[in-house]
Amino acid sequence: MPFTYRRTLHFRDTDAAGVVFFANYLALCHEAYEESLLAAGLKLADLFGTDDLLVPIARSEAEYLRPLKVGDGVRVEVRPEALSANSFAVHYEVYRSGSPEKLAARVRTEHVCTSPRLRERVPLPPALAAWVRQG
Amino acid sequence: MPFTYRRTLHFRDTDAAGVVFFANYLALCHEAYEESLLAAGLKLADLFGTDDLLVPIARSEAEYLRPLKVGDGVRVEVRPEALSANSFAVHYEVYRSGSPEKLAARVRTEHVCTSPRLRERVPLPPALAAWVRQG
Amino acid sequence: MPFTYRRTLHFRDTDAAGVVFFANYLALCHEAYEESLLAAGLKLADLFGTDDLLVPIARSEAEYLRPLKVGDGVRVEVRPEALSANSFAVHYEVYRSGSPEKLAARVRTEHVCTSPRLRERVPLPPALAAWVRQG
Amino acid sequence: MPFTYRRTLHFRDTDAAGVVFFANYLALCHEAYEESLLAAGLKLADLFGTDDLLVPIARSEAEYLRPLKVGDGVRVEVRPEALSANSFAVHYEVYRSGSPEKLAARVRTEHVCTSPRLRERVPLPPALAAWVRQG
Repeated sequence: MPFTYRRTLHFRDTDAAGVVFFANYLALCHEAYEESLLAAGLKLADLFGTDDLLVPIARSEAEYLRPLKVGDGVRVEVRPEALSANSFAVHYEVYRSGSPEKLAARVRTEHVCTSPRLRERVPLPPALAAWVRQG
Repeated sequence: MPFTYRRTLHFRDTDAAGVVFFANYLALCHEAYEESLLAAGLKLADLFGTDDLLVPIARSEAEYLRPLKVGDGVRVEVRPEALSANSFAVHYEVYRSGSPEKLAARVRTEHVCTSPRLRERVPLPPALAAWVRQG
Repeated sequence: MPFTYRRTLHFRDTDAAGVVFFANYLALCHEAYEESLLAAGLKLADLFGTDDLLVPIARSEAEYLRPLKVGDGVRVEVRPEALSANSFAVHYEVYRSGSPEKLAARVRTEHVCTSPRLRERVPLPPALAAWVRQG
Repeated sequence: MPFTYRRTLHFRDTDAAGVVFFANYLALCHEAYEESLLAAGLKLADLFGTDDLLVPIARSEAEYLRPLKVGDGVRVEVRPEALSANSFAVHYEVYRSGSPEKLAARVRTEHVCTSPRLRERVPLPPALAAWVRQG
């Protein structure tokens, strides 16, 4: 069972074309990723705010299938995938609530563990590696 | 009892100083305002997306009392206040979760009902007026 | 010669990890796209704000090659590419200023002309088609 | 002569109501503040990214006088004002380009110099104090 994140879309997510701005689908998926990490007991500040570890996104891909509007409910499914000792991918499916629910976007991000201090790639810390395997 | 909106703070809310960007406290309060309207059964797209009605914010004030970090939980209390037939204010208190919970910001916005078509101020639509009175 | 957009990176572009938030690379490229359209004499409000035409992004891909910080200057090169009578792609290269300048990201977006009123794909309007050919 | 910052408004600045989102007027003014500091030779990363100095905003006030649309040009005037050894205010006037130019918003922010390490207010660093006096 993938982790699921739900929320309502707000004015802040949209632009003057009347629908959610394309870059905000990615921001929404990142929220879902953070909520999934928090739900697994990981502390975001420890994971990403230190000089020993940064987990930047190296690549993103998104297919925008349906427009999303202010007030729409969305459900985001989050599925991590191991890539190597130092990297992982996350797959997201964004569903617009309704009867029936509709797939609105597919997003994929690639993440690489690096040490700002050592200036090189480092293995995933154990708690993050466990989160990836769980997916 | 004021309407209460809760959520976790995300990377998207913060900036390189390590805490939530000051303008995003206002965006957070606007989310709480939208959620309060939705909870009262109002449709955001009908209220703000037509040529007959726009409810722009004419004024905002904010006191930033404590920094907020990625992963912090917040609770926003929303209290509308009637100002005139055409306008209302909304008062927000943003609390950072914890034991004890701490007041992190006080925000106030002023809203004016206007008709883009008529190019003048118009009375609040009944559903919005009822929401203001409820507060 | 591709169109070039330059600006400084601001706190608003960054997050608590200390660098530009990944989704904001896409927002930055969209700014460059809008500036390129404006420089060619197209009016954004006419192009994207009517019931007759919407040009949503159907797909995006991004490679994030280097972190970008507050105060960094960036230069974005914009290269449109025709795909069909109804669609086009835009290629972006984001360079971080310095001696030497460094490639910080490669982004690609795919755009589809649609008519919200007709609920179907429509050919690019002539001014937009001319902008794509110019690229 | 106050410092002046100019740019075009983008889709990212707007929301589904068709105009610039109210919190983004504040983000725009903060950009102008950053550009003013950079123009005076201050390094943003040194000023705001260290454990010895943080200059958070303690208060903001904004009057939104006119809507701003995608493609509009704006000019922001920045005027700092000394408040105490530890604090200063910045006054902003946002003008929408055109013939004639129109005042679109008045914004004021209050900034307090603090040391995260010492957990107390500290005097403005000399370069920042000089920038405030210049205003």
